[in-house]
Amino acid sequence: MSLLVIGTLALDTIETPYGKEEYTLGGSATFISTAASYLTNDIRLVGIVGYDFPQKEIDFFKSRNIDTSGVEILKDTKTFHWHGVYSTDMNHRDTITTDLNALALFDPKISDKFAKTEYICLGNIDPVIQEKIIKQIVKPKLVMIDTMNFWIEGNPEQLNKVLKLVDVIMVNDSEARLLTGEHNLLIAAKKIMEYGPKILIIKKGEHGAMLFNENNIFIVPAFPLEKVFDPTGAGDSFAGGFMGWLDRTKDLSFENLKLAVVFGSVMASLSVEKFSLEGIRNLDKNMIIKRFDELKAVTNYKEVSL
Amino acid sequence: MSLLVIGTLALDTIETPYGKEEYTLGGSATFISTAASYLTNDIRLVGIVGYDFPQKEIDFFKSRNIDTSGVEILKDTKTFHWHGVYSTDMNHRDTITTDLNALALFDPKISDKFAKTEYICLGNIDPVIQEKIIKQIVKPKLVMIDTMNFWIEGNPEQLNKVLKLVDVIMVNDSEARLLTGEHNLLIAAKKIMEYGPKILIIKKGEHGAMLFNENNIFIVPAFPLEKVFDPTGAGDSFAGGFMGWLDRTKDLSFENLKLAVVFGSVMASLSVEKFSLEGIRNLDKNMIIKRFDELKAVTNYKEVSL
Repeated sequence: MSLLVIGTLALDTIETPYGKEEYTLGGSATFISTAASYLTNDIRLVGIVGYDFPQKEIDFFKSRNIDTSGVEILKDTKTFHWHGVYSTDMNHRDTITTDLNALALFDPKISDKFAKTEYICLGNIDPVIQEKIIKQIVKPKLVMIDTMNFWIEGNPEQLNKVLKLVDVIMVNDSEARLLTGEHNLLIAAKKIMEYGPKILIIKKGEHGAMLFNENNIFIVPAFPLEKVFDPTGAGDSFAGGFMGWLDRTKDLSFENLKLAVVFGSVMASLSVEKFSLEGIRNLDKNMIIKRFDELKAVTNYKEVSL
Repeated sequence: MSLLVIGTLALDTIETPYGKEEYTLGGSATFISTAASYLTNDIRLVGIVGYDFPQKEIDFFKSRNIDTSGVEILKDTKTFHWHGVYSTDMNHRDTITTDLNALALFDPKISDKFAKTEYICLGNIDPVIQEKIIKQIVKPKLVMIDTMNFWIEGNPEQLNKVLKLVDVIMVNDSEARLLTGEHNLLIAAKKIMEYGPKILIIKKGEHGAMLFNENNIFIVPAFPLEKVFDPTGAGDSFAGGFMGWLDRTKDLSFENLKLAVVFGSVMASLSVEKFSLEGIRNLDKNMIIKRFDELKAVTNYKEVSL
């Protein structure tokens, strides 16, 4: 089992109705790799940070069995810093500042060892960089990317090039509509799969997520929580749970893709229960299985006949 | 098995992006009783219409084994008429006209036979009338009501009186928030159950529905459709499927309430595939089981261990 995770490593300042944290560990690759680390081994992390990135966080990754040899540390610049403020109902967030810092120089050279990884998860970064990375992988079995409206509107030609190279794409519902010009998500999903990816995940926030593959559809709700403490990283935790399960099981049948989506939903729900990474920083197997079982009770039901 | 259905009988004029129908059969009691008629027998309908209500629609109810002896026909006024126009994405509708006509005089005297029914479903009508009706029922086993923002805002004291008399209430997510002042649906649900009903259904339109009972939660998605032809009556079809299944099975365990919600979702999805009542006017058992199985494939998944 091995999973290559490429994305941002950040120090976030986050304000939600429940509090504020400054320069706390964040970034897509942080959430993806940490969430995946509970389901699979030998995770390989590629990212870039500045001189202010805490050594204890590098040590944290190592403690989760995450290989940090692909993390570049720049000595003359700071780490990528994002400052966001969530609305009272948590459904909206405003970005106060985006200091790219080290991230502006992110253009990784994948090591020979890492380039032979079969399962690849690319967080939401510039599709120019996503393409360069994918082309360095020797023989990938499954490549997943995340993207966002910024790239869909800002560089659609480049994103379309990347879509032809990947197996799985994850977008949210408004991004699926933006990418296709279709309001109906089933029709949008068909179009996106025509662009390249065989597997599509559409995230719907508090309403859960949809999985598409050929003519199959699966829907999982978000696990119902009384208190969402901090939604930051929910989508990346979802991606980590999804790819972690697939790398663990190496089974791309639709029944197993369903389970990967369920583990995505499980990891996302654990993630949002605490600030920044804290919800998934220190889990154990029982906590994950407990949430899996709770979610199953909320979604599954018996057969009947009429 | 017997189910008492009380609500509106209407002639609707509906405009959706797919077309327009004038003076077509509608009303909450129409959708509830028709949807339920595929799951249970001996449905007893209480409503009021005017001289223009087509005899063929009375005959239709009878053909579905629905007892129409509780339908009052007024000779000097027309039937309740609602004219609505849906937005392009179907997520909003504007009411053009509401001609109450016969409905303004709706204050039914429940017959002795009907008053002994054990399962009662009250569509969205004035909570003053809802209370009067419930108090005529001799020994109800399960009373369900639907309501709407108009009554929540317009007559909250009266609605609160009704809530103490019922077992099940169905509202949509914005109504649940309005009723409680709580944004989080889990907290809102607990509050609503403190008002009286032991069982709560929160409808979320294209995102499905949530069922609450004591500390149990169940979520079912809306069956994914490429084309929603006409959303009119979806909630009432849901209520009909729900109460039809409960009346058929007489089992109020949470596992069976889940199935009732699934049949609600099944009937709603069949309803919206055609204009007005057409989607559920002429179903058979196989069509319903087929949709049940399709929905199960979309929602259910296997056990796992870690």
